[in-house]
Amino acid sequence: MIERLCIIGTGLIGGSLARGLRAAGEVKTIIGCSRNKQHLQQALELGVIDEFDVNAASAVNNADVIVIAVPVGAIGSVFEKIKGHIKPGAVITDVGSTKSSVVEAARKAFGDLPSGFVPGHPIAGTERNGVESSFAELFNDRRVILTPLDSSRADAIETVRAMWQACGAQVVELGVEHHDEVLAATSHLPHMLAYALVDTLARMHEHQEIFNFAAGGFRDFTRIASSDPLMWHDICLANRDALLVMLRRFSDDLRQLTDAIDRGDSEYLKETFIRAKQARDEHC
Amino acid sequence: MIERLCIIGTGLIGGSLARGLRAAGEVKTIIGCSRNKQHLQQALELGVIDEFDVNAASAVNNADVIVIAVPVGAIGSVFEKIKGHIKPGAVITDVGSTKSSVVEAARKAFGDLPSGFVPGHPIAGTERNGVESSFAELFNDRRVILTPLDSSRADAIETVRAMWQACGAQVVELGVEHHDEVLAATSHLPHMLAYALVDTLARMHEHQEIFNFAAGGFRDFTRIASSDPLMWHDICLANRDALLVMLRRFSDDLRQLTDAIDRGDSEYLKETFIRAKQARDEHC
Repeated sequence: MIERLCIIGTGLIGGSLARGLRAAGEVKTIIGCSRNKQHLQQALELGVIDEFDVNAASAVNNADVIVIAVPVGAIGSVFEKIKGHIKPGAVITDVGSTKSSVVEAARKAFGDLPSGFVPGHPIAGTERNGVESSFAELFNDRRVILTPLDSSRADAIETVRAMWQACGAQVVELGVEHHDEVLAATSHLPHMLAYALVDTLARMHEHQEIFNFAAGGFRDFTRIASSDPLMWHDICLANRDALLVMLRRFSDDLRQLTDAIDRGDSEYLKETFIRAKQARDEHC
Repeated sequence: MIERLCIIGTGLIGGSLARGLRAAGEVKTIIGCSRNKQHLQQALELGVIDEFDVNAASAVNNADVIVIAVPVGAIGSVFEKIKGHIKPGAVITDVGSTKSSVVEAARKAFGDLPSGFVPGHPIAGTERNGVESSFAELFNDRRVILTPLDSSRADAIETVRAMWQACGAQVVELGVEHHDEVLAATSHLPHMLAYALVDTLARMHEHQEIFNFAAGGFRDFTRIASSDPLMWHDICLANRDALLVMLRRFSDDLRQLTDAIDRGDSEYLKETFIRAKQARDEHC
């Protein structure tokens, strides 16, 4: 049971965490914090939070657990604001989609990392944003990756793990850099491809007609291109190195496929498509 | 009402067309034709067809309407087999995903194109194959593109249009080359990207772990990579020119996006993602 939980950023993820913990009876008081007072007011009216505070420094003051659920690009400035105001022994975690950049920002803000700090990343979300889209079951059966640091206290890791498990999540641990490589491959690269594809088509002369003939496969394929552009801007820059590795690897493979189509290489095409279908059917 | 309909290739598309026309009461007798007698036997047992014939030449002999529903790469050999056996005035159509290659194959087989020939392409399908996956509603509210030729008789165009409309489809007409360009953009290119992405990941050392962390977005994005590899092999080669144009255009755009990430160009990323999201939200 968490006595006082401070959630900084009460959007889809922060709001759903609050609802999930409330539903599980695993939290006593939830303090919401955001730069936007209207968002906080809305979260309060929806019963997602119990109190709010637009000032991050005072919001975290008496909190036992602090969850930073703002976009990746804004986490550093939150660290700066709460530094020196955290209760001794408090547990701090985040929900950022990239982890090296978050750890780097923490190091920059805190110098020595707080022993209560355990970076985290719930693999969950929808294309919608905002507390009005949040729901208690968002993390049910979803994976949450924790990337504990050498500096992280065992009890802090356990608190963060228990918090997500209370929301129904499967919690796993990965190294910081490995997390960023895996996510670059399975999430960040596909988002880039979906955005790039829709943009390529949108900039074609006859784009209105082209989209008219898009079928269900296209809609599924491009669904992730409806995600929040600013959030993905942040992720691109925060996980630049790992993402660039994957983008270049994919581009090389796509060029080889293009060359095979150009020279009419039946064997190459069959082998590639069969291998991909098998992997997809086996793993997804 | 079609008196005698011959469907060559009684898989998902051919079977669903048969079921749809039957449900609409718009066909009297359906003759199934396939090289695989077991498939025909199964279609007969399911009540999808009334008779079958493994010989295409005799199967089409008395048919008023002939629908060729085999993979794109096999359409040419069907034309060769039925040439000289078609009843005068019979209507001939196909369901191939590419149209230039089909028209070229028809020209090669027939010399002068039959006036009853109207190429067609229903924009519908699932990842499953075979008559056992067919259902009458597959074409409901889906688009069917007809690409009538200068040689196509007006009554033949009308018969093919009415046939698809009876299955609930919205029928539109496009030029042959324009069809191939539009489909390269909205269907063939996305399939190449999905196959290439899954294959890139499958060939990575730690692919088992990588797929473990794939979330819902990844599953939707790669669903089309579970499509029939041999069908897509055929489509690639049949629509090679239009597909290569799109693959190269996309690769150029992806390289520009990669360069923008590399140099940390915030404006470029924001503009691209916002434009793509707007296009996707508006059109899909």
